Amino acid sequence: MLIVGERINTSRHAINEAVAGRDAVAIQREVRLQVDGGADLIDVNAGSRRDSEVDDLIWLIEEIQNEFPKVRLSIDSANPDSMNRVLDRVMLRPMLNSTTGERSRMEAMAPVIQKRACDIVALCMDDRGIPKTAGQTVENTVRLVSDLEDLGVPRDRIFLDPVTQAVSANTRAGMMALEAIDGIRRELDGVHIISGLSNISFGLPRRPLVNRAFLTLAMKAGLTAAILDPSDRGLMSALKAAQVLLDQDPWCQAYTRAFREGRLEA
Amino acid sequence: MLIVGERINTSRHAINEAVAGRDAVAIQREVRLQVDGGADLIDVNAGSRRDSEVDDLIWLIEEIQNEFPKVRLSIDSANPDSMNRVLDRVMLRPMLNSTTGERSRMEAMAPVIQKRACDIVALCMDDRGIPKTAGQTVENTVRLVSDLEDLGVPRDRIFLDPVTQAVSANTRAGMMALEAIDGIRRELDGVHIISGLSNISFGLPRRPLVNRAFLTLAMKAGLTAAILDPSDRGLMSALKAAQVLLDQDPWCQAYTRAFREGRLEA
Repeated sequence: MLIVGERINTSRHAINEAVAGRDAVAIQREVRLQVDGGADLIDVNAGSRRDSEVDDLIWLIEEIQNEFPKVRLSIDSANPDSMNRVLDRVMLRPMLNSTTGERSRMEAMAPVIQKRACDIVALCMDDRGIPKTAGQTVENTVRLVSDLEDLGVPRDRIFLDPVTQAVSANTRAGMMALEAIDGIRRELDGVHIISGLSNISFGLPRRPLVNRAFLTLAMKAGLTAAILDPSDRGLMSALKAAQVLLDQDPWCQAYTRAFREGRLEA
Repeated sequence: MLIVGERINTSRHAINEAVAGRDAVAIQREVRLQVDGGADLIDVNAGSRRDSEVDDLIWLIEEIQNEFPKVRLSIDSANPDSMNRVLDRVMLRPMLNSTTGERSRMEAMAPVIQKRACDIVALCMDDRGIPKTAGQTVENTVRLVSDLEDLGVPRDRIFLDPVTQAVSANTRAGMMALEAIDGIRRELDGVHIISGLSNISFGLPRRPLVNRAFLTLAMKAGLTAAILDPSDRGLMSALKAAQVLLDQDPWCQAYTRAFREGRLEA
């Protein structure tokens, strides 16, 4: 499992304050927390600060790289032009978060995608909106992957996100997401499947319970990457337990190491 | 999901003391705890008290029925003769826990099974021992079901237990159990699939983490019943979250009710 840490997002009050005040120490503390928790990449999102997004992203990228030169970054923006303008500042191979199958979005992202070798998060929605069935999601991803391959992106750089809906609004949303993940895994050899976990539990109480169960089930279905809060010990412990059960942790080594390091939380 | 509460077992010190001292109040308190937690049946096991097992079972059955006349009982014994001698004392339809596919065991259980209409837990092992692959488990269950049907047991009274092994001893044990459950579900329409959850985590630290993840995954694979501790709020909360995601809880009603009643624990 590839873990993308989601905490550096200016929609969070503390991050907005740190970015506004150019408090590098506060940002680096947030990155440290995520790296210690098991993050492979750090997602960086300053989209809530529309007027200064590019400057803020550049500042974030440089402050994080200064302290963590070996940690990869995920550039998270709704604005392809912003991504384009900050992309050269990223030292290691960046992840772009994200494109979609919408025609205008794909066209705007094409020059960014072709600018340098990147990992691409691709949301399985297109001009018809968010798919209503798992089958439609899988169909969309086939087209998405073909479009990205036409732009020269190899499959193992593509991270498909099936775009989960809230189970509180649609009782079928959980099964639909699991069927979509399973279908993508069967249909598209070699791609990654990624999900932000927390949409699924929107509107419910005790959301961590639902998020953990969803992560566990999604891993079985074929999820290979997740955007989450790696400092959430309950969630990361659930992930490690799932790896043990799904034969993804030989001799339970990662699980027992996490226990010895005091990082397992029941 | 049918929940069989496992706490009334004389291998637990407190239960042994209560049974030895004929402390009905202590036993009824344990039953209340499980019923309040969501138990559909109460398992009763006095196997550790070999010399007095039958008397102890009869006492337990009567004390529990006095206080909880609407709660079904599961008679849990390795000794078919003990089961035979206590069976008439059970008011509602009993569950027999358990038979196996071993020839001698099935022969000894046959008269008990035919004595009255019961639910039967059947462990998927036979004279060749515990199956080494999921395919072998499914083959065994086909034979087991056929044997039980020959004794007049309808399918919807059969609870097949795939006999999970510890993942600490065999890294494949989790996947094997899930494949076995999935295979039984596909192969044998109308049977129940049951599991004691805790074998899977034997030998590991923080076992509740692994048990909860296994319950979640096993429910997706096709588990319809579980023998567990219903007073374990973390486990029961994980169960409720899994039901939400697997479209087994229309409009999230059971989940949100459990929340309102203060029974969800993240």
